[in-house]
Amino acid sequence: MLRALPLTAQAFAPFGEVIEIAGRESLSINQGTSQRFDDLAHIDVLEAGGRPVISIFRASPRALPFEVRVLERHPLSSQSFFPLHGRPFLIVVAEGQQPPVAPRIHAYLSSGSQGVSYRRNTWHHGLIALEQASDFLVLDRGGPGENCEEIELESAVTVT
Amino acid sequence: MLRALPLTAQAFAPFGEVIEIAGRESLSINQGTSQRFDDLAHIDVLEAGGRPVISIFRASPRALPFEVRVLERHPLSSQSFFPLHGRPFLIVVAEGQQPPVAPRIHAYLSSGSQGVSYRRNTWHHGLIALEQASDFLVLDRGGPGENCEEIELESAVTVT
Repeated sequence: MLRALPLTAQAFAPFGEVIEIAGRESLSINQGTSQRFDDLAHIDVLEAGGRPVISIFRASPRALPFEVRVLERHPLSSQSFFPLHGRPFLIVVAEGQQPPVAPRIHAYLSSGSQGVSYRRNTWHHGLIALEQASDFLVLDRGGPGENCEEIELESAVTVT
Repeated sequence: MLRALPLTAQAFAPFGEVIEIAGRESLSINQGTSQRFDDLAHIDVLEAGGRPVISIFRASPRALPFEVRVLERHPLSSQSFFPLHGRPFLIVVAEGQQPPVAPRIHAYLSSGSQGVSYRRNTWHHGLIALEQASDFLVLDRGGPGENCEEIELESAVTVT
């Protein structure tokens, strides 16, 4: 059993960035009518002739406890998600580049005003919405090359 | 006086893309638990050593009627906005590359589940939230070179 912890920039640092404005400095722009919280994640999508691609994912809701059986990673790019409905969602990641096993798997719960950017080659679960079907803005890579690897865990991990 | 029209992909085509899922095909991904609405805008940020930058803008609310006095454009990149609070916002753009004048200025109202991507060199107004302070996910360019040009209109245009 793995308990999902609150998502924080510090806890998530080994896996990528939390996209959020809490605790960040901003620039005043547009004659003072907007605040810009600049450059919140490392968008690493240009490898091997890649280009940035913006998409929307609509995710069906899943329930807790949630059984993690398969993780994926992207060898050619980061992949960034931001929730469009302000609802918490579940993030599951694994430390290191080796095939993931339970002690190296971590789960976090976004507040709903936090997105995440998975660093290239970071093992993570596909998008997990909770409660209701939810839309996410997604920034990843288009271009040549195979950019998705999936792995089935030797033993499933249950996230509560 | 200029009346803001509902934002549609067709009306906005001269200025860039509407980022939305309505009327779009999707791909089933993640074992059927998500639908991917893929590649919704032309993210044109690589010019002159550029890189994609993801930011959040927090915009103060403005009221209608709204007086348009200054427009801007980005000679080195597109700039994409998506509302994070689901509320309508106002979009003001001008046709052509010449200094904008009233007959070539258009205003659109996003439904709140529509974002926009301004094509490179498209004259547009800075972000205009309505009703409440609102956050937007923004995708534009980092890198060398001056990428913002501003122009004051000879005569202000009032959007209703």
